[in-house]
Amino acid sequence: MTASTSNHSPAVAGRGTVGAPVAGVIMGSSSDWEIMRHAVAMLDEFGIPCETRVISAHRMPLDMAEYGASAAKRGLRGIIAGAGGAAHLPGMMAALTPVPVYGVPVPSRYLRGEDSLLSIVQMPRGVPVATFAIGEAGAANAALHLIACLATTDAALQEKLSAFRARQTDAARNMAVPPPGA
Amino acid sequence: MTASTSNHSPAVAGRGTVGAPVAGVIMGSSSDWEIMRHAVAMLDEFGIPCETRVISAHRMPLDMAEYGASAAKRGLRGIIAGAGGAAHLPGMMAALTPVPVYGVPVPSRYLRGEDSLLSIVQMPRGVPVATFAIGEAGAANAALHLIACLATTDAALQEKLSAFRARQTDAARNMAVPPPGA
Amino acid sequence: MTASTSNHSPAVAGRGTVGAPVAGVIMGSSSDWEIMRHAVAMLDEFGIPCETRVISAHRMPLDMAEYGASAAKRGLRGIIAGAGGAAHLPGMMAALTPVPVYGVPVPSRYLRGEDSLLSIVQMPRGVPVATFAIGEAGAANAALHLIACLATTDAALQEKLSAFRARQTDAARNMAVPPPGA
Amino acid sequence: MTASTSNHSPAVAGRGTVGAPVAGVIMGSSSDWEIMRHAVAMLDEFGIPCETRVISAHRMPLDMAEYGASAAKRGLRGIIAGAGGAAHLPGMMAALTPVPVYGVPVPSRYLRGEDSLLSIVQMPRGVPVATFAIGEAGAANAALHLIACLATTDAALQEKLSAFRARQTDAARNMAVPPPGA
Amino acid sequence: MTASTSNHSPAVAGRGTVGAPVAGVIMGSSSDWEIMRHAVAMLDEFGIPCETRVISAHRMPLDMAEYGASAAKRGLRGIIAGAGGAAHLPGMMAALTPVPVYGVPVPSRYLRGEDSLLSIVQMPRGVPVATFAIGEAGAANAALHLIACLATTDAALQEKLSAFRARQTDAARNMAVPPPGA
Amino acid sequence: MTASTSNHSPAVAGRGTVGAPVAGVIMGSSSDWEIMRHAVAMLDEFGIPCETRVISAHRMPLDMAEYGASAAKRGLRGIIAGAGGAAHLPGMMAALTPVPVYGVPVPSRYLRGEDSLLSIVQMPRGVPVATFAIGEAGAANAALHLIACLATTDAALQEKLSAFRARQTDAARNMAVPPPGA
Amino acid sequence: MTASTSNHSPAVAGRGTVGAPVAGVIMGSSSDWEIMRHAVAMLDEFGIPCETRVISAHRMPLDMAEYGASAAKRGLRGIIAGAGGAAHLPGMMAALTPVPVYGVPVPSRYLRGEDSLLSIVQMPRGVPVATFAIGEAGAANAALHLIACLATTDAALQEKLSAFRARQTDAARNMAVPPPGA
Amino acid sequence: MTASTSNHSPAVAGRGTVGAPVAGVIMGSSSDWEIMRHAVAMLDEFGIPCETRVISAHRMPLDMAEYGASAAKRGLRGIIAGAGGAAHLPGMMAALTPVPVYGVPVPSRYLRGEDSLLSIVQMPRGVPVATFAIGEAGAANAALHLIACLATTDAALQEKLSAFRARQTDAARNMAVPPPGA
Repeated sequence: MTASTSNHSPAVAGRGTVGAPVAGVIMGSSSDWEIMRHAVAMLDEFGIPCETRVISAHRMPLDMAEYGASAAKRGLRGIIAGAGGAAHLPGMMAALTPVPVYGVPVPSRYLRGEDSLLSIVQMPRGVPVATFAIGEAGAANAALHLIACLATTDAALQEKLSAFRARQTDAARNMAVPPPGA
Repeated sequence: MTASTSNHSPAVAGRGTVGAPVAGVIMGSSSDWEIMRHAVAMLDEFGIPCETRVISAHRMPLDMAEYGASAAKRGLRGIIAGAGGAAHLPGMMAALTPVPVYGVPVPSRYLRGEDSLLSIVQMPRGVPVATFAIGEAGAANAALHLIACLATTDAALQEKLSAFRARQTDAARNMAVPPPGA
Repeated sequence: MTASTSNHSPAVAGRGTVGAPVAGVIMGSSSDWEIMRHAVAMLDEFGIPCETRVISAHRMPLDMAEYGASAAKRGLRGIIAGAGGAAHLPGMMAALTPVPVYGVPVPSRYLRGEDSLLSIVQMPRGVPVATFAIGEAGAANAALHLIACLATTDAALQEKLSAFRARQTDAARNMAVPPPGA
Repeated sequence: MTASTSNHSPAVAGRGTVGAPVAGVIMGSSSDWEIMRHAVAMLDEFGIPCETRVISAHRMPLDMAEYGASAAKRGLRGIIAGAGGAAHLPGMMAALTPVPVYGVPVPSRYLRGEDSLLSIVQMPRGVPVATFAIGEAGAANAALHLIACLATTDAALQEKLSAFRARQTDAARNMAVPPPGA
Repeated sequence: MTASTSNHSPAVAGRGTVGAPVAGVIMGSSSDWEIMRHAVAMLDEFGIPCETRVISAHRMPLDMAEYGASAAKRGLRGIIAGAGGAAHLPGMMAALTPVPVYGVPVPSRYLRGEDSLLSIVQMPRGVPVATFAIGEAGAANAALHLIACLATTDAALQEKLSAFRARQTDAARNMAVPPPGA
Repeated sequence: MTASTSNHSPAVAGRGTVGAPVAGVIMGSSSDWEIMRHAVAMLDEFGIPCETRVISAHRMPLDMAEYGASAAKRGLRGIIAGAGGAAHLPGMMAALTPVPVYGVPVPSRYLRGEDSLLSIVQMPRGVPVATFAIGEAGAANAALHLIACLATTDAALQEKLSAFRARQTDAARNMAVPPPGA
Repeated sequence: MTASTSNHSPAVAGRGTVGAPVAGVIMGSSSDWEIMRHAVAMLDEFGIPCETRVISAHRMPLDMAEYGASAAKRGLRGIIAGAGGAAHLPGMMAALTPVPVYGVPVPSRYLRGEDSLLSIVQMPRGVPVATFAIGEAGAANAALHLIACLATTDAALQEKLSAFRARQTDAARNMAVPPPGA
Repeated sequence: MTASTSNHSPAVAGRGTVGAPVAGVIMGSSSDWEIMRHAVAMLDEFGIPCETRVISAHRMPLDMAEYGASAAKRGLRGIIAGAGGAAHLPGMMAALTPVPVYGVPVPSRYLRGEDSLLSIVQMPRGVPVATFAIGEAGAANAALHLIACLATTDAALQEKLSAFRARQTDAARNMAVPPPGA
């Protein structure tokens, strides 16, 4: 495999993420990491083994095709793809594999991700990309959505998800306004 | 259940869609049907039993909550939600159920769905809605993405999906330009 | 009541804001406080008792429903709701209570509140949200509009409002250009 | 009074709308009627006496000032103002009277009301206009919001509003998909 | 006259700007000075006497009407009006006086002047505002356009304008790339 | 002169428009006439002699330069230039002549004139184009603004303008709502 | 070769377009023909042999890669690629071949080609797509730009291009306003 | 020649860029250099001799015409033109010379280059400008596209281009995520 690759496993093995990757987190450039790490962190939190790779649709189109061709065989259940500007990686990956693709619009320098969003979400009938919000929230949510899909057939994961959401609700409930110190 | 409900099953039982619904297709108004029927048609094509309902986030908020509360128990594996304008149905449904939600921006009268798209896709971290293109293509693709998720653990469905995509590729390959009669 | 709650009363009791809250100021996250405090400050200035709460439409949907269900009974005459991005709180609150809702688009990270504005203002026929400008000005004006509504049946408040506007006019009249020091 | 004026009263006196107008419905041109009549129809439905007038901010600025100056004295509890393009009528009326102003962005020829919306909603701190959706829905909702404000001190009207919303909920619940005949 | 007023005359009387103001430079707030001073500087450079005033359309509507009513009598040949957000000052001034109005969209906090631009330029048939670019360039150009209008009947000014443009052309011609030090 | 030219004079000589043209009305294509005729009609109404020409910035750049070079000598007091899409005619004409240029954004096929507007209004410091609304209203208003400039030194024209505006105000005052027949 | 293919040669051999194709005109669907035929017509007018093919980036990604891999060997000097919505074909083709790619944004159903434009033009550093206007004009101009590139080393073609532009200038010069019959 | 001119040759003669310029890199102001230097750097990297000049469409229109008139004779094979705001330089240069023009939208102060992009790309049928992304990436890509055009008849350059792209692919392949130090 020519693409830069790293099997990303959280440091603490006990969190259960050792094993063949279930999710791929790919991005067009290492500069997208600042956004895409929010997807990886979320997968880690749920113990979903994932691999992370830079795959540039425009600079590595054949590697991209190769990645798409092998994704299902290698056992991936979802691919989270982030890109900015004329963001073709998510849509092309969706064209190259039956594995569901989750697209993250990375904010662009001058148009703040409006171009990224439209390039990802406006896919033609027949080749879907599940698209999420521009930036950090979108990266985290792409992972959460994939986790929710996995959880529909995994009771333990479903429970983790419920617990996550309960904690999230509690955290919101405990927010005070004015916030302390404001 | 107070919501208008119909268990939608394709006419030909042999297509395997008889049974408890696996997918919910919900929309804010019956006027959204013209768009959302493309989701239902796709589910039918793959034999995925689905139910269709009008659930207005703003006019039926408690029905919406009820629907969300029971969705997982009733065995739904995905909810495809379409709405236009200040489109709150997909995001609220995502808040109300652990079942993955697929959002379809329905074109609005004056802003052509730009408002629908932003109201659906820009969800905050923690509550994801997988968003698809504005209009008919988005409705069809929301269904296709859900099918692809189901297919990751269903070999027969995976095969159907492969066949669908092969037919789709062939159809594109057979397109002539200029088209006949042009 | 599970929502984080605080009856906000200005420090100086003499300003008349002690008592049951007449206005609710709610927001999706404590991070919205920086904007929403401009609504609270305005209510304080006019001695309108208000309560402030974080109510996240997406992380606390049932608390939100509960808040809406009790709002009228508890004597609220208006609810000022701020949210950003796919901002569903104002519209959903409007669906859940007959109390008039005033929406404040909180600026979002990448789209500067354009998404917030459209998600709040483009409500369908039947469930209105009175919407104000993006950001600080909108928060202050939501409060002022509510005050003006209250003042239509409260002569003392009407007088306060007239005085406020007279002071405001005087302040503008006294602005010099170039400003001192420029 | 120089402005074109008509005290609009529903045909059926029994609906209770005979009497001094409580609401003003004003618009920049008679061509805005096609939108603004949805506000009038809603007020009629609730028996709120209203007057309707063409007041052009740009062609009748002094009439506008006069209207603003007398609005409170004449007993108006709210002014619903619609305009398109560089829509200044709602904001200027808000500057000229303490009566609460409800703005309706009328769709414009080339920009579909985006210009109208921004011209109305982006008011500076201190002079609020409660803004609603572009077009027909916004006109109807401006009236509904005013009705909800009036209802906070009018139990009979509150009841009518509850009944209206219950009917609205029922109508949505009774929507079938596919719609009959589709 | 209640409006804050200052007859702006360049410090060096020899530049010929002493005398009754020919141009009015008005703005909605002293905070607009940072942009509008570019109009004043340009008028100064050409020796056009001007007055500068803060006139808030929304906080000083009657002062605005008064200013418009007296503008022609006082000998003004043009009014340069700057405002931001829901920018109503230029259009309203155009409605209140036959003196030509030149509009400057002041950049707004969240929408960068897109709202200001549309609120100023999209005037209805019959009441024109000559609109210029968002920000500093627009302020300078509004003044230059007024100067060009005055120059059509003032040979000396025409000559000054020609000299200005010749210097401007020379300055551009002398620009080196890479710029020194780059 | 190579450009297509026609000295446009209203049919009724008594309206005073016989004589050397005072205004030029130019446009990028004869297809712009449908918009630009609104400028010509307004000039006619005020008896301002004008010439009309198709001058394409992109297909006739040298004719454009020639037109600009002779405009002042030929006595033009203003040039109204309309163009659509990447609309360069107004800005280039402003670069080529000291005669004031009034720009009209002609609606474009796919972007409805947003491209035209930005291409015309966003001129850099030093070369102004007075810009008006997209489409018919903008064409009429460009003419009206030029007329208002001419009227600052022409008492008879000033009177005509006052009469025009008085008629316009009366027409608005006489608008009834609902309009007859609605 | 699996892609649908037709060597498009104008009917009149004497126009010199018989021979191996110099240009490829590709598009995502036969429905794009209505726009893309304007590119073909222009190439025909200049006698540039071209081939036309439907190549869907999303439904035929491997055919696309194959087309890109062989383009240079087959002697193509330019590829004109049109697509709409999330338009990935031009950018991906640019990634797959050293042959220069000219992108045409095809108008999309709801967003009128704004999505197509941004998806094509906002390519990252290193993989350029020369982008042209949305729709018919863009298709014709993509061909014209390619012709101009070819003409830099082909004196006969250069002459044809000069003649074309001279005719175009003459046609514009001969446009009358008002147009005959208007 | 009156325009500011400098024949830009890379310092190292061995890179083969000594000689008559093949490419012109022009821009509206020296302040555009920060963007346009990315075009020059790319041409240098490939040893393409180029000249760089400030040519302001609006402040130096006759110099612009002169430059266009002589461009082909002087042997230029392409002109890369960058401008911001109402960016007329690329389109006007395309009107003035048969040499292919490559347009670079320079980011503008308030609209971030959206105005620049539309002003450049939306050219009418008949006068093409090949347009690239807003900002640095667009400048580099305009040069790369010109290089690719030149390479279609220059085997040595083609090889350089292949090597460049191979290095680029390798660089992307070697990107690690998380990036070192992140």
